Amino acid sequence: MRAVLLAAGEGKRLWPYFKRPKPLVSLLGLSLIERNILSLRECGISEFIIVTGCYDEEIRKALGDGGKLGVNIRYLYNAAWELGNGTSAQAFSREYRPGEKFILMMSDHIFDLDLMRSFTAAADEIEEDELLLAADGRLDKVYNLEECTKVKAEGSLALRLGKELSDYNAVDCGLFLGTGALLDALSEAIAEGRCALTDAVNLMAGRGKVRLHFVDGFWTDVDDIESYKECEKRLIKSLVPPKDGVISRLINRKISLRITRLLAPTRVTPNLITFVSFLLAAASALFFALKNPLAGGLLAQLASIVDGVDGEIARLKFQRSRFGEMFDSLLDRYADCLIIIGMTCSWFYETGSRLALFAGAAALAGAPMSMLFKEKYRNVYGQPFISEIHDGIMRYFAANRDLRLFIVMLGGVFNLLPAALIILAVISHLQTIYRLCRLRRQN
Amino acid sequence: MRAVLLAAGEGKRLWPYFKRPKPLVSLLGLSLIERNILSLRECGISEFIIVTGCYDEEIRKALGDGGKLGVNIRYLYNAAWELGNGTSAQAFSREYRPGEKFILMMSDHIFDLDLMRSFTAAADEIEEDELLLAADGRLDKVYNLEECTKVKAEGSLALRLGKELSDYNAVDCGLFLGTGALLDALSEAIAEGRCALTDAVNLMAGRGKVRLHFVDGFWTDVDDIESYKECEKRLIKSLVPPKDGVISRLINRKISLRITRLLAPTRVTPNLITFVSFLLAAASALFFALKNPLAGGLLAQLASIVDGVDGEIARLKFQRSRFGEMFDSLLDRYADCLIIIGMTCSWFYETGSRLALFAGAAALAGAPMSMLFKEKYRNVYGQPFISEIHDGIMRYFAANRDLRLFIVMLGGVFNLLPAALIILAVISHLQTIYRLCRLRRQN
Repeated sequence: MRAVLLAAGEGKRLWPYFKRPKPLVSLLGLSLIERNILSLRECGISEFIIVTGCYDEEIRKALGDGGKLGVNIRYLYNAAWELGNGTSAQAFSREYRPGEKFILMMSDHIFDLDLMRSFTAAADEIEEDELLLAADGRLDKVYNLEECTKVKAEGSLALRLGKELSDYNAVDCGLFLGTGALLDALSEAIAEGRCALTDAVNLMAGRGKVRLHFVDGFWTDVDDIESYKECEKRLIKSLVPPKDGVISRLINRKISLRITRLLAPTRVTPNLITFVSFLLAAASALFFALKNPLAGGLLAQLASIVDGVDGEIARLKFQRSRFGEMFDSLLDRYADCLIIIGMTCSWFYETGSRLALFAGAAALAGAPMSMLFKEKYRNVYGQPFISEIHDGIMRYFAANRDLRLFIVMLGGVFNLLPAALIILAVISHLQTIYRLCRLRRQN
Repeated sequence: MRAVLLAAGEGKRLWPYFKRPKPLVSLLGLSLIERNILSLRECGISEFIIVTGCYDEEIRKALGDGGKLGVNIRYLYNAAWELGNGTSAQAFSREYRPGEKFILMMSDHIFDLDLMRSFTAAADEIEEDELLLAADGRLDKVYNLEECTKVKAEGSLALRLGKELSDYNAVDCGLFLGTGALLDALSEAIAEGRCALTDAVNLMAGRGKVRLHFVDGFWTDVDDIESYKECEKRLIKSLVPPKDGVISRLINRKISLRITRLLAPTRVTPNLITFVSFLLAAASALFFALKNPLAGGLLAQLASIVDGVDGEIARLKFQRSRFGEMFDSLLDRYADCLIIIGMTCSWFYETGSRLALFAGAAALAGAPMSMLFKEKYRNVYGQPFISEIHDGIMRYFAANRDLRLFIVMLGGVFNLLPAALIILAVISHLQTIYRLCRLRRQN
């Protein structure tokens, strides 16, 4: 499937703030149009047609043939762009291949990736003479409702569309799955002097040919500086994974998301952040060994926070990689080991106690057990191990990394390293034994 | 698909050795017919028809309704069993459902599981008026060729069958995938007084309706004490997994297979063996800590050997379980940790050297890395990490558990624990770094 991105308009309202064509306005490290291209690439689309108008040259120069983004881009220039975005959509007629279904979207609307995924996956749901339109029925949650194109829907069918509609129950998200029928409707509407895309969609709606795909993720029409900021806020919020440890949710994410916001516009890569998190953990270990538990504890917590940033940046900027996942997992294990060794050194140097050595060894042995269990479980049972589901009553006490490093931090700040080490050892082993026993019972 | 097992014959030649009906003769912990039922169960078959004759009562009593084996068994008694095995096969006509395809096999032929899998998966390859016959074209490898039913084949079609055939290029393995056409052919042959299954198959072969499925795993017709012993040997040999570490292949398997042979007839479960292997490792750790490195080293090697037995028994007796896999993996990690802690204690108590502690800590941190890497790799890349493929030149030095425990053994036997600990630490970390670097380059 190919995607057609409309990028012909003037976008006046954002110009004063960014001094560049709206599709090229940068938002958290990617221009609006780049984010849409990469988002669609994640959905398996690699062929793009960009319809330009007002800023033809600037846009071509910025995106080139798409090679840098790992896709193919071709351009169509619409000299009549000022007449309305229907003329831009119609420009695709020159390129259209009979029977083809295509994504059509505004280059300045930003969508949640899952929303995009479910929408593109719905291509089979429409007939060759129909149009699929992403629509949002959560009217109370729609940002800047006034500016939106309203939709009167009956079931999954659109009856009427329009900005001034008074009787409506959804809004148009600016994301379409089109067929040749849309191009025909565009010609028909334009011939009658109605040059907005909505005019053609209305024509099809009148014939009962516009199906609606109701969305449930976030989306924003980035039109002015307020919507730009709102979109930034929503994107950042979307970076929190659904299953997050308790410390991560209550403490780490609040800081890591801020770091991510700061780093997003830079060229810092997720793997570099992974490495920095490791270095922070190594520094923590060193401070523990040098008998500065306060610094050691705080650095451990900082390492834990930064450990969230790599994933956030990777998701935000479409920089996820399989190597990155491996690198992150393994470096985290090394970081854990170093911190435990540092804590053990501190306790042992101070007291010479053999208990320190055994507690350290037990904590060291326990450190990788949570990951070992989860990875093995996923391979053996063919589904991820999810503490919330599989840990029964113990799900509230899952000894995930965020909690373990929080215990380290507390141990450092309150100068209670022995207690922290013993707790770490005990919870990691108890958890493994508990999980094995539960599995045994279920078998 | 249902399976029909022929168990009507007298099986005179094995009687003197076992004093029981041949299908119930025990071979490595399972009777011949139980092994066939469990083997077919692994191929997704759960409905069984057993045709009895000579030993009707004994067989019904031994297998019951199949509940113990996790399948459903129904019985058909063939009073005319002495006339020939064609009459037993024909007994299934009473139960046959129009259009049905079914497995038909001798209950005393033993097959490699992979062979069985590929044969049952071939059900779609034949038409409703055809028969599929497992045939072996590797005449030089066939055991007791003289006793076999020979087949003259042209491509995948059987032209003629017979024990006395002089012009042949394959042999009949006694494993069929039948349709209603076979039952018709049986009636036809029996009406003419030819009561062997081969007579009906020959009839169909003459009409070009017998397709051959050439096998490449082992199979044996257990007919006399020699073939019984041969079958035992082949089953034991088939337990060695295709990818085995170098120490495992050269040393461990030679002993573990003997232990498996001894334990197979007992009720010892794979999980119990896993636990015994863990206890041996714990004893090894204790002996190291008590400054008896010789006993420690030998026990570590013994733990490594026994660690192979659980999997062998599980495969041999169809006792594999997902819990068993988890239990084995995690207990191995605990065993590794204990041994390293024991070795470190020994070195540290003797010298008081801090190097002992750091080497011990490094070895402890490195111990789970190989497993962590492999399990994570499989989850991230969706395929197993295979040292032979993914480790490049280092595949000959993969620090798998068999090699690591061999190093422990050498360290104990030659009283070189410091060297062994340092080597363990170095190879496990170098291997992780090497693998990460290779992944990075491939990305």
